[in-house]
Amino acid sequence: MDVISVIRTKRDKGELSPEQIDWVIDAYTRGAVADEQMSALAMAILLNGMNRTEIARWTAAMIASGERMNFDSLSRPTADKHSTGGVGDKITLPLAPLVAACGAAVPQLSGRGLGHTGGTLDKLESIPGWRALLSNEEMLHVLDTTGAVICAAGDGLAPADKKLYALRDVTGTVEAIPLIASSIMSKKIAEGTGSLVLDVKVGTGAFMKNIEDARELASTMVGLGTDSGVRTVALLTDMSTPLGLTAGNALEVRESVEVLAGGGPADVVELTIALAREMLEAAGIKDADPAKALADGSAMDHWRRMIAAQGGDPDAALPVAREQHVVTAPSSGVLTRLDAYDIGIAAWRLGAGRARKEDPVQAGAGVELHAKPGDTVTAGQPLVTLHTDTPEKFDYALQSLGSAWDIAAPGTEFTPNPIVLDRIA
Amino acid sequence: MDVISVIRTKRDKGELSPEQIDWVIDAYTRGAVADEQMSALAMAILLNGMNRTEIARWTAAMIASGERMNFDSLSRPTADKHSTGGVGDKITLPLAPLVAACGAAVPQLSGRGLGHTGGTLDKLESIPGWRALLSNEEMLHVLDTTGAVICAAGDGLAPADKKLYALRDVTGTVEAIPLIASSIMSKKIAEGTGSLVLDVKVGTGAFMKNIEDARELASTMVGLGTDSGVRTVALLTDMSTPLGLTAGNALEVRESVEVLAGGGPADVVELTIALAREMLEAAGIKDADPAKALADGSAMDHWRRMIAAQGGDPDAALPVAREQHVVTAPSSGVLTRLDAYDIGIAAWRLGAGRARKEDPVQAGAGVELHAKPGDTVTAGQPLVTLHTDTPEKFDYALQSLGSAWDIAAPGTEFTPNPIVLDRIA
Repeated sequence: MDVISVIRTKRDKGELSPEQIDWVIDAYTRGAVADEQMSALAMAILLNGMNRTEIARWTAAMIASGERMNFDSLSRPTADKHSTGGVGDKITLPLAPLVAACGAAVPQLSGRGLGHTGGTLDKLESIPGWRALLSNEEMLHVLDTTGAVICAAGDGLAPADKKLYALRDVTGTVEAIPLIASSIMSKKIAEGTGSLVLDVKVGTGAFMKNIEDARELASTMVGLGTDSGVRTVALLTDMSTPLGLTAGNALEVRESVEVLAGGGPADVVELTIALAREMLEAAGIKDADPAKALADGSAMDHWRRMIAAQGGDPDAALPVAREQHVVTAPSSGVLTRLDAYDIGIAAWRLGAGRARKEDPVQAGAGVELHAKPGDTVTAGQPLVTLHTDTPEKFDYALQSLGSAWDIAAPGTEFTPNPIVLDRIA
Repeated sequence: MDVISVIRTKRDKGELSPEQIDWVIDAYTRGAVADEQMSALAMAILLNGMNRTEIARWTAAMIASGERMNFDSLSRPTADKHSTGGVGDKITLPLAPLVAACGAAVPQLSGRGLGHTGGTLDKLESIPGWRALLSNEEMLHVLDTTGAVICAAGDGLAPADKKLYALRDVTGTVEAIPLIASSIMSKKIAEGTGSLVLDVKVGTGAFMKNIEDARELASTMVGLGTDSGVRTVALLTDMSTPLGLTAGNALEVRESVEVLAGGGPADVVELTIALAREMLEAAGIKDADPAKALADGSAMDHWRRMIAAQGGDPDAALPVAREQHVVTAPSSGVLTRLDAYDIGIAAWRLGAGRARKEDPVQAGAGVELHAKPGDTVTAGQPLVTLHTDTPEKFDYALQSLGSAWDIAAPGTEFTPNPIVLDRIA
């Protein structure tokens, strides 16, 4: 077996054999296949695709590169959720304690933000004292005692994926459906969850810009999960506009706590409940009512316990950015578009995100929205507020907002996109 | 400018801008673009192509990465030849002194063999004392005093190409016409020749397996040369069967000397004269007759002076391999196929070529042919003789000859391919 023949097979539009896939993933993990060889193969896969047999084997080989976790010792069924990433997507924060309050165990191994989408761990780290890094034993303990845990994935899960993901990030090979699907699912299957709900984002603020690509990604992942014995379902959800009214770390924690307190923006509440219902159904839990668990405070109780179990103070004041800049509506009318990507870039430029893995993020930085598509606005009223500790970045952030919204004539009929666009099981 | 946007442009089938090309070649040469990024770009170029504007800029950027040579101080016009590589292709050896004997200056900056095709420098190094490595001053001196020089290209010419070529070799991205054309032409234009004849090989033993690809490569290179002020013409020539009766270093030197002495295999003589005529025409030299220069010994005189000027002894006995193994014809009839690739692989396995750049080659190893397509053979007569210093390799070499020839019924009508298939100017 040699790597050039593997690269040539895919370059020339052939099907990779199981032996080729097993060998190349193992050899890459060991360092016997070099980065420049794997990136050429990744580009060939991006341009020439893989079929379902190849994707399944690729995923299995990445799982086999590391350890597998096991939640069999828990008394409750496990339910996990994964989002492909969007702007203002803080759903994991209220969702995990909510589903725990309804009787499932929710292990959320999460990541940090890179590029214009925020990372769940970055958001939670704005809570004073909260720790993302737990040992496997600590993770199981938090999960067992509070019903939910949100923490960093250990180095032992799918190390081949970790190495390949970092390579794809710097070689323009992120946007390959077979590689996205196998990356996500290898970690989720290795993690050992019994059921999994995928939130596949569609729109300007998502990796998948159109619903056909999103549907292909979703059905690929559902097939991979189901074939591996994980009850898997996917919702396709709108990411043409940010979720909720905030994009930024502490700003999103504040909004999540509002949802847990029974309030919060309608779209965040709707999606949180929709995903909770899917997770409970996939976990085989009947008779639980997520809307009730938000209303009666039991979800909030689980949140407080989960945060405290990881060293966080749920009552501590959240960080606030040193400077704010208000952008007002240029005209009166109906807001018909508020672009998720432009808002995400603005938040990132203000300091909420990072350009390189090793960069720090600002806890208080981000964008606060004062209107959403469908709302009527008046010229001069605040439309968005920018938050940052580094006000010299206001101009740079404002550049990304030059065509971030459309305001139609007053009285224009306009119906915003629904949040949930499709369901794939 | 960032590398991921350059990769994405080509990945998404866009046209690279002049600024993107200049930047990425320069940044790669400096090490600011990493190997894994350039290999992803190379795969995207291989699969999505480059148009002529892009290829011209890519070539210019590679030339600009290093020094340019200049032969203006010579009293004679310069004429260079480049072959895309084939099995038994020793043509440079008789051709350079022959064209020098006809009045041109022939600078042949040559390479070593890698894979199943031999390298001109490896062949000449089988002559005791001969040195491939010359300084620029030594090279000009040999060229000026003997009319021809065959030596290794200096490190200063197109260093971007040197780095990129080594990368392509290990990442399955060699077979991209835009990259092959720009690699060859950047070195030839930087070298400063006034005219250039390209010998583009077609067939099983060549990079280009079919004539359409060869024609595209040839016309791309002719366009690049002409646009840079180099009078450039290409011959498309057959490489379905080895050239001449030998493949191997000293074996090919011996055959080349036979040609210079007025003998040698008909196909080698025919192609040598055809290329010499093209080179002389491109260099603007009229009234010279290459066939006469072979017959009257003047080409041989130039060979002897050229070899001696680089430390070689033209009268020294050439190395002979320690062991020979004769393969006989399995049946009587007409030889209708003798596969160039299979013979090339056999010669390589016997020790004539190298698997890695740092490997040594055996001067005496190779394959000697006793018949060519069109010849009548008798069962039991020698068909090929294998030569090696390491007889344990005979079995490995014989494996590549399992289907290397076809013998048709006695009396079958068969016309071998012509040597020169097409001419592109």
